Order: sequence, then structure tokens, then C-alpha cells
Amino acid sequence: MLINRHNLRVEWGDCDAAGIVFYPRYFAWFDASTFHLFARTGLSMRALWERYGSVGTPLVDVSARFLIPSRWGEDLVCESGVSEWGQSSFTVQHRLLKEGKLAVEGTEKRVWVVPHPTEKGRIKSAPIPHEIVAALSDASGATKIVT
Amino acid sequence: MLINRHNLRVEWGDCDAAGIVFYPRYFAWFDASTFHLFARTGLSMRALWERYGSVGTPLVDVSARFLIPSRWGEDLVCESGVSEWGQSSFTVQHRLLKEGKLAVEGTEKRVWVVPHPTEKGRIKSAPIPHEIVAALSDASGATKIVT
Amino acid sequence: MLINRHNLRVEWGDCDAAGIVFYPRYFAWFDASTFHLFARTGLSMRALWERYGSVGTPLVDVSARFLIPSRWGEDLVCESGVSEWGQSSFTVQHRLLKEGKLAVEGTEKRVWVVPHPTEKGRIKSAPIPHEIVAALSDASGATKIVT
Amino acid sequence: MLINRHNLRVEWGDCDAAGIVFYPRYFAWFDASTFHLFARTGLSMRALWERYGSVGTPLVDVSARFLIPSRWGEDLVCESGVSEWGQSSFTVQHRLLKEGKLAVEGTEKRVWVVPHPTEKGRIKSAPIPHEIVAALSDASGATKIVT
Repeated sequence: MLINRHNLRVEWGDCDAAGIVFYPRYFAWFDASTFHLFARTGLSMRALWERYGSVGTPLVDVSARFLIPSRWGEDLVCESGVSEWGQSSFTVQHRLLKEGKLAVEGTEKRVWVVPHPTEKGRIKSAPIPHEIVAALSDASGATKIVT
Repeated sequence: MLINRHNLRVEWGDCDAAGIVFYPRYFAWFDASTFHLFARTGLSMRALWERYGSVGTPLVDVSARFLIPSRWGEDLVCESGVSEWGQSSFTVQHRLLKEGKLAVEGTEKRVWVVPHPTEKGRIKSAPIPHEIVAALSDASGATKIVT
Repeated sequence: MLINRHNLRVEWGDCDAAGIVFYPRYFAWFDASTFHLFARTGLSMRALWERYGSVGTPLVDVSARFLIPSRWGEDLVCESGVSEWGQSSFTVQHRLLKEGKLAVEGTEKRVWVVPHPTEKGRIKSAPIPHEIVAALSDASGATKIVT
Repeated sequence: MLINRHNLRVEWGDCDAAGIVFYPRYFAWFDASTFHLFARTGLSMRALWERYGSVGTPLVDVSARFLIPSRWGEDLVCESGVSEWGQSSFTVQHRLLKEGKLAVEGTEKRVWVVPHPTEKGRIKSAPIPHEIVAALSDASGATKIVT
């Protein structure tokens, strides 16, 4: 499993009236981290979608566990990797670390989707391209999609 | 000028670590209030776009002045109306009231846009449909676009 | 279990580039719905905190399952109730309905916290006041905290 | 005038259903950039507030002009500097550049505030500490607040 590390600064506007991160912001960071992870294939998420005819990776379910609150001005690292591959679904595991300690952990289960072949405006799940699975399964990060 | 009144509750998550509204949230409310104002034509913004071939009303410039801070749990009213009509642009004036007192006021200058006739993926400004101007200029709110 | 119903309009700014709700927004709605639910005790969350010396209800863990995507301009109802009461923790169950169909469901496990008695700036969990449990357990909504 | 440069990646969740940045997000970036600018004094905004007894820099008014839309996956640079110093107010000028071209420009007029000396829970404006003015006026960035 390839782990991507994404640095985050907790900004004033990420925090609520208790001075700690408003929890929906963690999911915005998870979402962004998933996009950064996929860019480790060598192609940005946008380029991947264009190459493979995908129109997104919508969520099926998500979860998070909050262990240490974070305050504005603090720096976090989001470690993300795909922990499970299905036929057309995959689960991204996220671990937010503050000074090396686990602050938040969560999962996003997503589906790889393409436009529905016959019904305009609809989508359907599709097999995840092998090259993406290969690139994100290679812990060394050496495997890249070559264009 | 037709004035639309839109009720808002300041939620916990709208506030920053000082316990008052994080100011970008005011613009999210202005944006939503513009959509609610246009629905006073009798058609939702989505229906207006479909009917007149528009793909949006992007911003040209915005401004806001903050007079009274608001805290979570407080109720606000956003009064919005188009104060100026250009050929393809228009200015929406917003006034946020708390207990009848002006708390925030602002303007959004927007453009009515349609897909570019020849360049794929681009947009161009277009004349604002007369029916919309008529409906939003009628202070009584009686003028509606009939489908 | 008392169920509170909170009406929501999906606004343009709640949606992502796929035209559907950006999923962290669902958690902002869950958070707001929890506050609205607690107001069914007869006291706002702010008033409850003041009365019982609480400083918040931080999250321990959350989860959500996404069944039907929602688009801007659509109306949702968020049904929320406390499905489980611990000593100092509780779980809020949320069900977002679109035209009567379950679109998203989720849970928030939260803790009732008070300022730490000796360590400044820290918090500790505390027993949830009986009156709150009683009011939110009464499905009829008739039980209120009288001041 | 010291100019701070802050790099930004436009994420999927920053964009609206038209695929471009939802404009309130620009203000969240302006806000964050102001905090990063003040950190160029050598002390973080949090440390500055603690040192000088401030409790914030609330907004008086803001404005923005949108010249080029930005899409998810694009990189922006936010150049920010204090263009005007009053007794207790100051104006931060922000310029968001995309590939070297001005995409958005805006201003934030803010006030330096301290707790009200006699009325609990209220704030009042206060003179901006000279060291801050000096540090942020020095275009070379060499002037720092030494603790």
C-alpha cells in the first residue's frame, strides 16, 4: 500500500467557537488527500478521469474517530493509502498526525464511476483500471502510469 | 426593486474561534440569497438557466461591510434585491439584519453567461432576459414568468 | 426517542464540480441538526451549556452512508434523535430524506464536557444532566426543561 | 510593504457545480493569507495576540474583483501585504495569481482589538503595536519581533 503524506496547516477559519477544528473540515482534508494520493500514480485525478473515461469517485460510506483535538496554527500530516480494493470500489484509509501522534483516523469507501452507456445524465460503477491499482499498491511509489 | 427576505440561523459551524461568524460564510449566504431572489420570478434558478440557455451567473466583484458581529444561535434575515441592471451584468444588494438592525451589507456584481457559440468549454456574457428583469424589478412581486 | 425534523435546502455552494453535495457538508448539517434537536428540550444548546456548566459536546466518532446523491435546489429533511445514552457520551442518529426516501444516514458519538476542575484550559467528560436525557427520550416531545 | 507569498492548491471541494472556485472560498484564503503574513513578524498570529493582549483582527469591510476563474487541481499564489496602516485599523491587499497572471484581487480592512477594560465579553479597538507595523512595512522582511 502506497502511503501519501500531505501537510496541512489548521487555519483560523477551520476552527469552531471552541477553538478546535470543526469536524466536517477533517473530511474536506480527507477528500483532498485522496486526490493527492491518486496523483502519486503519475497523473492527476483530473488526468486519470480523462484517460479512463471516469467522471468521479463518489462516496459510499465514511467514518472517522477523533482522538486529539487540533487548534488553529497547528500543523498536521495526513497519511493516506488505499487499504482495500474491490472490483469497482476501494477504501481509502486516512491517519492525521499531530507531532507524530494519531489525532484523527478515518476511512472513505468510494466507487469508480463512468457515464451510464445508455441513460443520459446517469452514472454507473466500473472496474478500477489495473494501472491505478498497481501504482497505489506499490509501497515504494516507484510504479507510475506512463502516458 | 423586488426585495426577497431569506431567514438564516447562525449555526455553531458558521462561527470561528472568536465565537462570531467566520466572514466568508456571509458570502455563502449572499450567494444562496441571490438564488432565492431569482426564484421569485416564479422559476428556480435551475429552471431559469434551462429555459434561457444560461450556464451561470459568475461574479465580477463583491464587497461587504461588517457592522455588528453575529454569534451562533442567532437569527438573521437577508434582504436581497437587484439594485442595478446592465446589458448582461447586474448588481445584487444584500442587507443582513439582526433584530431589525443592519448587521452586514454587501453587493455582488454578476454576469449572465451562456456557452460560447463556437469555442467548446468556454462561456460568454449574454443579455439578461427581459422577463427576469421585469419580475425582479416589480417591487410588489406580482410579476412572474409564466411557463 | 424524540425525533427532530430539520428542513434543508441544498444550495449551489453546497455542491461540488459533479453538481452533487460535497460530502463534508452533510456533516455540517448533522452538526446543526444535533443543535436543533437539543433545543427541543426547551432550551437552546447555548442555554443548556450555561445552565449545566458545559462547554461543548465534542465528537468521539462519526459515520455516514450515502445512498442517493442530492443536487442544488433540492429539499431535504434531516431526522435526528439520540439513539443511545451513555454516562457522559451519547449517539445521535441522523437520517436525511429526499422526497421521503433515505438519501444519507449517519451517526455522531459525542461527549458532554465541562471545564477541567484543576487544569486550566482543559476539559473533562461529565454525566449528562438527567433533564436532557428525559426530554430527548420522550418521543412525544412533551417533556421540557422548565427554567 | 512586506509581501508574503502563500501557495494554494485548488481542491475539488473548493469548487462549485460549474467546476470553478466557489467565491466565498477566496475569502477563506485571504483570511488564512493574512495570518501567514503576520507570521512574517517572526511570531505567529497566536503569539502576537498573546504578547500584545489582542483577541483578534475582525473585519470592517472587504472587497474582491474576479478576473480569471480557477478550476480544481490548479495552483495559485496569494500575494498579501498591508497597504495602509491606521491608528487601530489596517488594510490587507491580496493578489491571487495563476501562472503569473492576476486571477483575483481583494482587500480586507481589519481592526486590532483587545478586551474591553470594563465591560466583560466586549472588545474595543486598540493601537496596532509599533513592532508589527515596522516588521510588515519592511519590504525586505528582515525586521522581526524579537522575544
